[in-house]
Amino acid sequence: MADQKKMVEAITSMEEDFSRWYTDVVKKAELVDYSSVRGCMILRPYGCALWENIRDNLDARFKELGHENVAMPLFIPESLLQKEKDHVEGFAPEVAWVTYGGSERLTERLCVRPTSETLFCEHFAHVIKSYRDLPKLYNQWCSVVRWEKTTRPFLRTMEFWWQEGHTMHETKEEALAETEQMLNVYADFCEQKLAIPVLKGRKTEKEQFAGAEATYTIEAMMHDGKALQSGTSHFFGDGFARAFDIQYTGRDNKLAYPFQTSWGMSTRIIGAIIMTHGDNNGLVLPPAVAPTQVMVIPIAQHKEGVLEKANEITNRIKSFCRAKIDASENSPGWKFAEYEMKGVPLRLEIGPKDIENNQCVLVRRDNRQKYVVSLDELETAIPQALQDLHDALYQKALENRENRTWAATTMEEAKEIADRDNGFIKTMWCGDLDCELAMKEQVGLTSRCMPFRQEQLSETCICCGKPAKKMVVWGKAY
Amino acid sequence: MADQKKMVEAITSMEEDFSRWYTDVVKKAELVDYSSVRGCMILRPYGCALWENIRDNLDARFKELGHENVAMPLFIPESLLQKEKDHVEGFAPEVAWVTYGGSERLTERLCVRPTSETLFCEHFAHVIKSYRDLPKLYNQWCSVVRWEKTTRPFLRTMEFWWQEGHTMHETKEEALAETEQMLNVYADFCEQKLAIPVLKGRKTEKEQFAGAEATYTIEAMMHDGKALQSGTSHFFGDGFARAFDIQYTGRDNKLAYPFQTSWGMSTRIIGAIIMTHGDNNGLVLPPAVAPTQVMVIPIAQHKEGVLEKANEITNRIKSFCRAKIDASENSPGWKFAEYEMKGVPLRLEIGPKDIENNQCVLVRRDNRQKYVVSLDELETAIPQALQDLHDALYQKALENRENRTWAATTMEEAKEIADRDNGFIKTMWCGDLDCELAMKEQVGLTSRCMPFRQEQLSETCICCGKPAKKMVVWGKAY
Repeated sequence: MADQKKMVEAITSMEEDFSRWYTDVVKKAELVDYSSVRGCMILRPYGCALWENIRDNLDARFKELGHENVAMPLFIPESLLQKEKDHVEGFAPEVAWVTYGGSERLTERLCVRPTSETLFCEHFAHVIKSYRDLPKLYNQWCSVVRWEKTTRPFLRTMEFWWQEGHTMHETKEEALAETEQMLNVYADFCEQKLAIPVLKGRKTEKEQFAGAEATYTIEAMMHDGKALQSGTSHFFGDGFARAFDIQYTGRDNKLAYPFQTSWGMSTRIIGAIIMTHGDNNGLVLPPAVAPTQVMVIPIAQHKEGVLEKANEITNRIKSFCRAKIDASENSPGWKFAEYEMKGVPLRLEIGPKDIENNQCVLVRRDNRQKYVVSLDELETAIPQALQDLHDALYQKALENRENRTWAATTMEEAKEIADRDNGFIKTMWCGDLDCELAMKEQVGLTSRCMPFRQEQLSETCICCGKPAKKMVVWGKAY
Repeated sequence: MADQKKMVEAITSMEEDFSRWYTDVVKKAELVDYSSVRGCMILRPYGCALWENIRDNLDARFKELGHENVAMPLFIPESLLQKEKDHVEGFAPEVAWVTYGGSERLTERLCVRPTSETLFCEHFAHVIKSYRDLPKLYNQWCSVVRWEKTTRPFLRTMEFWWQEGHTMHETKEEALAETEQMLNVYADFCEQKLAIPVLKGRKTEKEQFAGAEATYTIEAMMHDGKALQSGTSHFFGDGFARAFDIQYTGRDNKLAYPFQTSWGMSTRIIGAIIMTHGDNNGLVLPPAVAPTQVMVIPIAQHKEGVLEKANEITNRIKSFCRAKIDASENSPGWKFAEYEMKGVPLRLEIGPKDIENNQCVLVRRDNRQKYVVSLDELETAIPQALQDLHDALYQKALENRENRTWAATTMEEAKEIADRDNGFIKTMWCGDLDCELAMKEQVGLTSRCMPFRQEQLSETCICCGKPAKKMVVWGKAY
């Protein structure tokens, strides 16, 4: 117990300082390490395994829907980046520039990709000639670099890992359907696998991706009531196609420009997992992506037969869950605290008395609920406990979001709510940039999205009183 | 047949120009596309799927042996690269330098990683404190950049994809055992999965990795008799550990430096697959990594029942092999040529007569051998045909290597052989750099390796006549 206490005391509590709690968890759960490269993180084995599980799950979904992976170059020549006007304006200020190759000064600077629309477009121009070449449904897994001033692990780093889907379609309708479909893939993944409820909606023009005609987003609410944009899907129209001269011969034998989408989810989502489910004992991982789902901890392991049985059980349950055993010399108390810190969904305790009774104890990470389970029933009890844990995480996160979602019809009301607490504030909006900026200046909130599920809170814009066009959800964002 | 002829004629024959044949295959099999970034390639869906199969197979082997994946930053600060003297000398001339972040000039240049020893060492210094922290068995999948003057897809590109394993051990013996183990993993993978026989050996000091105490290599022979270094494994001793001040408290309670290894295999191996197995009809892929192992081609597909049956079979065989159907409007002849070009190991033809007789025709890519197979026996016939194909590829490559391996005891003899043909030439060597350089100047060959299986061809060095220390295998290398 002394050990356990020591471990737990080593994290700042969420209530004391949420931001320090976050950094403590990231570090003590051994997700990342810092390097001497400013703003770049190292994904340690535990963080990397978590990302690989996220990747594999998403990748299977993409492929199921007909997408193919490709790998594009890391560099973008300056002239290529400049081909689409809005896009270069959005990204040029925040890219890393390569100016030398060995000792030779380059005649043209290369930027390290901040995103790869331009590279995909150049390639699309090579391979799209006829309507028979459409759709092109591409995706790539890679890291990208954005020269950020302030960085925090997962949430905002100079280099981050992600996937970027890039697709080309014959018709606008198809491209719009793809944009929506991929947003739904992200939302479903967040809810079904990460136990994170998300709000689906469209970004305002101000918050749109550089070069997009429409950007759709899923917004999650963190434990502290702040918002985290967790995945985006963009409809480009044929703007890039025109800028990059991508034309195909259509069914009518005429040249036409295809319609484009892109969509991405990044290592940021790990930040969302931490801040949605974590608690004062550390990380709490949703079972679907947890590197270890069940940690077997032998009790009184020096006693005859305990380690053998614990090993036997570990090997047996590995056939249906990701299980490990910790048979090290550390005390059970130390191990309990360690795997609570790492957010392992279930621990399985087994000692001499349990063996005598042909049973073991399962302990859930989220609420420390104990289940005494017959060793004959592990095949049903463990999957059930993992599912229960998932459902409880989702329910808790949903309640937090519901408790922190308010409607406002006047600026005073909005300000009063925002001053009191973090959360989502729903208001009506006329659609003007000025009113959006006023919310930022006067209330300190930015628009998160215009939810697909609109409500009619009033007839008029909260700011200017003119007729309202949309309900917007506002919040403080990571 | 006209279509088929047209496709086949579109590649330069190997005998006419091996180098152009290679480039034609790479392009027409749709493995890569060029981008506007000099020397950087795009992995198209087919090339990317091939690389993913290679990655997944190797990754499972690494993990089975206890290795964990991590992800290191893309950038290395100049001062970090300079910490190990030999290493920086080897790599500094060929790195890409980032000098600007946005519009701000950096106070210290960052290079884009050409390899990540320095980053791993910096991290190891953070996480290795005690012998209990050892061994550290890490690996990462990423791309690296080397500023090459002349580039060719897969063989030598500015950016390439690879894995780099980096491990730290308590003792020299353990590190040496790891170096050897991982070389064996590569060799086994090449032979058992890629059907490429490899020669295992140690590199001469001149050919060693920058900063290594010993470099081990697997060398494959291409169809044209030239050599391709296909994977390397390095033993670093404690040189980097000293340079980066990585110390741990040993079992004796004293501070000590750990011993280090690194090992890598890259997208180069795809070049080896192409040049070992390919023929004048295009690519020939070893079944274990082929994105599609069986392509189902319906014959007379407009006839009643053919497409239904072909689809049914495709879905059925998908349970035990990677299968696809091409039900497009293209002619069977066009399809045959297309999937021969893409190196699909087996095609399965099924037409009205076959259906009547409850059979189909399997055609092997390597020798066009046809098997008429009962539809009741696909579960055994297809895996058997794939295995036969693998074995035949391996055997053919082995024969090519044996036919092109010669021994020489005089420089004249070596020169005569080298002038006549490409291949491996075995000679005795005294161990002096001068004699190694003389082989290059006078015979035009570089040392490939000192094979683990040594032979005693004579008592003296082929060049200087002094007592010989080692048998070396020489060749022309890609």
